[in-house]
Amino acid sequence: VVLATPVGLFRGILSLAAPALAPGVVVIDVGSTKARVVADLEPLVPPPGAFVGCHPIAGSERRGVSAARADLFGGAVCIITPTAKTPPDVAARVGQTWEALGMAVHAMAPEVHDRFLAEVSHLPHVVASALVRAIGGEAEPFVGPGWADTTRVASGDAALWRDILMSTAAEVAAALERFQGTLAAFRSALRQGDAAKVELL
Amino acid sequence: VVLATPVGLFRGILSLAAPALAPGVVVIDVGSTKARVVADLEPLVPPPGAFVGCHPIAGSERRGVSAARADLFGGAVCIITPTAKTPPDVAARVGQTWEALGMAVHAMAPEVHDRFLAEVSHLPHVVASALVRAIGGEAEPFVGPGWADTTRVASGDAALWRDILMSTAAEVAAALERFQGTLAAFRSALRQGDAAKVELL
Repeated sequence: VVLATPVGLFRGILSLAAPALAPGVVVIDVGSTKARVVADLEPLVPPPGAFVGCHPIAGSERRGVSAARADLFGGAVCIITPTAKTPPDVAARVGQTWEALGMAVHAMAPEVHDRFLAEVSHLPHVVASALVRAIGGEAEPFVGPGWADTTRVASGDAALWRDILMSTAAEVAAALERFQGTLAAFRSALRQGDAAKVELL
Repeated sequence: VVLATPVGLFRGILSLAAPALAPGVVVIDVGSTKARVVADLEPLVPPPGAFVGCHPIAGSERRGVSAARADLFGGAVCIITPTAKTPPDVAARVGQTWEALGMAVHAMAPEVHDRFLAEVSHLPHVVASALVRAIGGEAEPFVGPGWADTTRVASGDAALWRDILMSTAAEVAAALERFQGTLAAFRSALRQGDAAKVELL
């Protein structure tokens, strides 16, 4: 069983589906956050079955069947987050499934996953969204060729991202705080006319 | 005569070249900032010649002859910044030259250009650079498909960008300050668990 909805819906769906699961079934998800998801879902799949959190790092800002691509997973990374409760053979089987789709599989703790992803994915999303909002309407006709790239991720589904960001709020806030520190140092270099520091950034 | 080096070099180059300019020659540039450039260069080209600041908004993070493309300008916007001292026929001729290359030409004051570009180009560059720096090395293997796009502009030539940023330091700092305000509001919504505000961003 694969859960592939916005992460905020997983718990309700699996609660409804749990009584109908065959004994020993393996449930995985493909959500972008893991600590809360694993904590919520692992108890819902009793042994000999198991829940294994998975995050195939692939996809785009588009959603729905029309965005499907046969080569979506090839060459990309998939993080799986087995826990101390996950039977090792189940974790191995899940990893092999992703590998069969052409993915490089990394196993790590759910919390480590969330810290990494807050930095490399959720922070850039927040930043791109804030950039889109920070641009005054007057200046918009003059966006250059870099603009579409820089802000593409901001066009992702808003409800999906709300769920992702809320379920790793602490990690994203911490990454954002570090990022704000970098920006503040940069702004002060600009105000002071410190060209060497500006070039270093 | 077209100046197409990093903006910090324009003044020195035109000072050296000025004695050799034929009377009535029109000098333009293709730099990314305008107020300081126009203030510096306009006095160096005596009537009946003139300097007209130009900014064709096109190009990429690449530089050099190997990055050349025949269709670079087609369909893109070119801002020209004639002043009260620019003979109207010269401004018209410069505009027509860019139009002949397939560009949509907008005329505006050099200061307005710099304010707009600080928002739509220089701010995104600063933000992309700061993002690249904010990501811890550990998390880097897990960057997703959005990462390359979001940070592509950060790979632009460092000396070129230092000059651009220093010559519009005040405008970029102001745009950065507004952007930091947006980020701060967002971080506080995250910390407070305010899902509605997080979705709105």
